[in-house]
Amino acid sequence: MLFFEPRLSMSGYISCNSCHNLSLGGVDALPTSVGHNWQEGPINSPTVLNADYMLAQFWDGRAADLKEQAGGPINNPKEMGYTHELAVDTIRSMPAYIARFNGVYGSNEINIDRITDAIAVFEKTLVTPNSPFDKYLEGDQKAISADALAGYQLFKNKGCVSCHNGPAVGGTMYMKMGLVKPFHTNNPAEGRKGVTGKEADKFVFKVPTLRNIELTYPYFHDGSVWGLEEAVNTMADIQLGQKMNQEEISQMVEFLKTLTGDQPQIVLPALPPSNNNTPRPVPFTKG
Amino acid sequence: MLFFEPRLSMSGYISCNSCHNLSLGGVDALPTSVGHNWQEGPINSPTVLNADYMLAQFWDGRAADLKEQAGGPINNPKEMGYTHELAVDTIRSMPAYIARFNGVYGSNEINIDRITDAIAVFEKTLVTPNSPFDKYLEGDQKAISADALAGYQLFKNKGCVSCHNGPAVGGTMYMKMGLVKPFHTNNPAEGRKGVTGKEADKFVFKVPTLRNIELTYPYFHDGSVWGLEEAVNTMADIQLGQKMNQEEISQMVEFLKTLTGDQPQIVLPALPPSNNNTPRPVPFTKG
Repeated sequence: MLFFEPRLSMSGYISCNSCHNLSLGGVDALPTSVGHNWQEGPINSPTVLNADYMLAQFWDGRAADLKEQAGGPINNPKEMGYTHELAVDTIRSMPAYIARFNGVYGSNEINIDRITDAIAVFEKTLVTPNSPFDKYLEGDQKAISADALAGYQLFKNKGCVSCHNGPAVGGTMYMKMGLVKPFHTNNPAEGRKGVTGKEADKFVFKVPTLRNIELTYPYFHDGSVWGLEEAVNTMADIQLGQKMNQEEISQMVEFLKTLTGDQPQIVLPALPPSNNNTPRPVPFTKG
Repeated sequence: MLFFEPRLSMSGYISCNSCHNLSLGGVDALPTSVGHNWQEGPINSPTVLNADYMLAQFWDGRAADLKEQAGGPINNPKEMGYTHELAVDTIRSMPAYIARFNGVYGSNEINIDRITDAIAVFEKTLVTPNSPFDKYLEGDQKAISADALAGYQLFKNKGCVSCHNGPAVGGTMYMKMGLVKPFHTNNPAEGRKGVTGKEADKFVFKVPTLRNIELTYPYFHDGSVWGLEEAVNTMADIQLGQKMNQEEISQMVEFLKTLTGDQPQIVLPALPPSNNNTPRPVPFTKG
């Protein structure tokens, strides 16, 4: 319910699902997100699918876990534009929410800690099992095509797997974007440097998951690349110093498409109505 | 799928569900809607729930039916801000959509007529049965409280029912807003006058459904009133020339709350990925 709750935003219009749309692979499929008052977000929204497998949250890993992440957009003026206090007041105003929190946490208390915990626990369920590649790994040789299998071999042999590994095929480490050759972008994000303050961490980002990568375009932290072919080619070039021919790229893309799993089956929640105690949304600031 | 499809908008961010949110009683719960580039909509978004029971669509009835309505927001520059041509190109670019249309319409052709038809057919399923009041009418005397029953008697005796009638408790006729006394609003909408050109139709609007009225705040075509108590009081005053005391208003509100039915159980659809043939969204216009 809270993941789909637009009243966690100042406008009453933006929910977690607005930028991590579960109909679209857990992203908004935009280079950067639309925030409060149509402000342009600073970075590409990462997918919420399989996000709990990441070593930390956000591209720069500044949140330790999903719970810490969930509090970020709510009070970010460029995203949901609210405050934690008003978000709590909003949820707390509705008896149906109080009953839900009581049922889960054993008391009527609602605070930002419980709100973000509840969102995080929901997000932990957003996994995408049964991808063709999973089935292949489980022994079903016919689950992926010959081209995809060739792509998997390239994925290992070319070195992609050295960063994109683990249960989410990524998310296990930080790595410099532009390891071998510089990555050219207009996006000012400096990655881990903003967290650690170290110059060596400039342009170091969390390695993203490749699960459902077919769905989570556009690619890279700046959302600058729309096609998997170009993304593969760029990664090979600037991260691995490798040149891949067209056939290899096609095979790699075929492999990447086998990482699309079953999307979460979510019944849209019916949210409780606001009442006289609920802070009113402020979608438009009158002059 | 199309109802939840943000790629029917220029930004790739706004879907039918953005303003007719099925988690929020089929509305956005805002006075007026947020449109492309955060433009403020001209009028309160009516609920999509039970909308097929309305004699026509939009507050001024300018669309004959749901299918005609569905085409409106897509190419309204203040709403989804797209064109029908680009919307069709978008849907047509995805093989998964082509297969769906073929399965339903018997050919691969995708055009705006089929897109709006499919949306309308989905919307016709968005009914909310089993409200306490329905159960009462079916013979379950205990389905509504004594206060709600008293409110129902007031609803009939005071004259509310003369406009709010039919299966949706509204939507069967047009009526002047401010029949007995003028309705004061800053909203410039003139209602049916804009459709018929007749001065007599100024401020004449479609009578809205009262089903799920507890969920579809804020009220009236200008979305100016947030509470049911105030809405009831205003209606009695300016439409019926009646004065209601506090007890009567409370009873009426209790009755109105019995009109909330089972909300549609919708599994969020997984939308097919864009590809190289899909027009790219333009969320932000660069200077």
